[in-house]
Amino acid sequence: MSERPVESNVDKHTEEAIDEPRVIDILDSKQLGHRIDLINKAIRIQLLEDGGEPPVLYETTRHLILAGGKRLRSLLVILCSEAVGGSVEEALPYAVATEFIQTASLIHDDIIDEDALRRGVKTTHEKYGRKMAIIAGDLLVAKAIKMIGEKSSPELLTYVSAGAISMCEGEAADLLMSTNSKTEVYTKKNYLDIVRLKTVAFMTSAAKVGASIGNANQQQLEALITFTENLGYAFQIRDDILDVIASQNGTGKSVLSDLKGSRCNFLLAHALEDSAVEKRDRCVKLLDNGELYYALQLIDETHAVQYATLTTQQYIDDAKNAIRNQGFENEENLVLLADFVVNRLY
Amino acid sequence: MSERPVESNVDKHTEEAIDEPRVIDILDSKQLGHRIDLINKAIRIQLLEDGGEPPVLYETTRHLILAGGKRLRSLLVILCSEAVGGSVEEALPYAVATEFIQTASLIHDDIIDEDALRRGVKTTHEKYGRKMAIIAGDLLVAKAIKMIGEKSSPELLTYVSAGAISMCEGEAADLLMSTNSKTEVYTKKNYLDIVRLKTVAFMTSAAKVGASIGNANQQQLEALITFTENLGYAFQIRDDILDVIASQNGTGKSVLSDLKGSRCNFLLAHALEDSAVEKRDRCVKLLDNGELYYALQLIDETHAVQYATLTTQQYIDDAKNAIRNQGFENEENLVLLADFVVNRLY
Repeated sequence: MSERPVESNVDKHTEEAIDEPRVIDILDSKQLGHRIDLINKAIRIQLLEDGGEPPVLYETTRHLILAGGKRLRSLLVILCSEAVGGSVEEALPYAVATEFIQTASLIHDDIIDEDALRRGVKTTHEKYGRKMAIIAGDLLVAKAIKMIGEKSSPELLTYVSAGAISMCEGEAADLLMSTNSKTEVYTKKNYLDIVRLKTVAFMTSAAKVGASIGNANQQQLEALITFTENLGYAFQIRDDILDVIASQNGTGKSVLSDLKGSRCNFLLAHALEDSAVEKRDRCVKLLDNGELYYALQLIDETHAVQYATLTTQQYIDDAKNAIRNQGFENEENLVLLADFVVNRLY
Repeated sequence: MSERPVESNVDKHTEEAIDEPRVIDILDSKQLGHRIDLINKAIRIQLLEDGGEPPVLYETTRHLILAGGKRLRSLLVILCSEAVGGSVEEALPYAVATEFIQTASLIHDDIIDEDALRRGVKTTHEKYGRKMAIIAGDLLVAKAIKMIGEKSSPELLTYVSAGAISMCEGEAADLLMSTNSKTEVYTKKNYLDIVRLKTVAFMTSAAKVGASIGNANQQQLEALITFTENLGYAFQIRDDILDVIASQNGTGKSVLSDLKGSRCNFLLAHALEDSAVEKRDRCVKLLDNGELYYALQLIDETHAVQYATLTTQQYIDDAKNAIRNQGFENEENLVLLADFVVNRLY
């Protein structure tokens, strides 16, 4: 994936943005909100009716997943299924399984990053301890496998596991970036390679699962994959923007956690690449000592927020283009999801 | 599962033990050793030919699994398949997947228990750090799911995931035991409840997978499950004996790690139940302060090692009885495995 945007597009996009529909809260959309309600209900049934032992393990498992979340992966399963004529009901168990695996990865990531806050609540290990949180993540994965196994869909399982493998690889690559000398490895190209594994691959798995449930043909499948890949990059870069600009209450996450943890962030990659060598070296040295102010100054100097915003807009344009004129029954909902991804404040 | 043994059997078993074949190293048996070679080869192929990125993640993933191990779960898959006419080749991918999930749970358990040594090498988090070790465990699970998914066997997946869920529940229950007041909860009954989840359930999953591959009928399936359940309890109690009596070089694990970590151990449960209240309270108080000598003294006073040894022997007798006269083609190998479980020194 080449880096974006081409500079000459800056003005065009800034003007266009005024006319775009803005979905900043996913629940603003009745169509998407209704599907999220169904997902949430199915999650609750799956995690409450089980009545597992010991109770504190199941409480730990529920903590983060019931604290909300954008349900982006599970929505992708449902919307990609509906696009090609599948029903919400058929897609729902897979949507929930996808959400379980995603939540498991967040619980483990928060332990790895030592983050204290997510979705406006304490992270799972902060509330229940690191040990119980590791087990809770493992349990969610096992539950997800069981759900898919019960539906007798080994092909879909291959999609999900391939996405999960990439997610592990991306998480490890991201972790390594923080321990390497940042000036050389902290490029937008490396960033996009990591994001492809860490974020995009599992979203694409979700799309493939949905498309398969609805029996998509090859052209439809490819369109939905292209849509989701672009959506995935936009989603992650938007996350990075929010990490830098949002207040803690807005995102429900710790602010500047990427910079504090030296994890890969698109704005920082842009700022470092766009600055002279001596500034770059100084920035990295200060970050290693936990000093963030100079990184924020370079982000400001290099207009990284604007650059990143335009980049997300271009990805979203490509996402929307991919699904146009494909005869998808729910094109409008896919567009709503794309708009949410790029405009969201949380 | 009721506690054992009935005291009147003590003499009988002590005498019988002399005539029993003693398999103390699994590689002493050509038949089992050959199958372990095949398993190890398949594991290497699966983890080396992948050539995954980043390399250090795959190195982390290989560290523990290639350091050896008894391959008990993967042997169960193969032997239970062969018992009812299945081939080693058919069973092998499932055997490897089972070993991956088992190893993932060991990697995460060692982080939880803060153990430094396993299979004679540094634990994964000791060598590669806690963060990379968490991801490596997750990756092994995802790889296992992918292998089973590629084989298109949703039913077998349900067995494996059910076992994995129990394993998480047992691990959590074991963890909770260490934080509760031990005198009340530290009973052999509670111990066996935890072991059923933590150890026996996943072994039974392995047996079910193997039996299904070979198309076992209901009676054969039940016989293999009964065999494996008894084997599982014997295996865990033997582990507990070795934790107390073995030297570090023998087991490749940290010695007395159960007692140090206040994790459930059959010998300690027996010692506490068999001692007067004031001794029990003193023992627990000292353990909470990291003092092990009094626990070892009570284990000695109550002849816990002998009691546990007889208990494992009774479980193994029941295991062997379960598979007799079932027409299993490899009865001899199943008996060899049972003998190894109860006589092993590592």
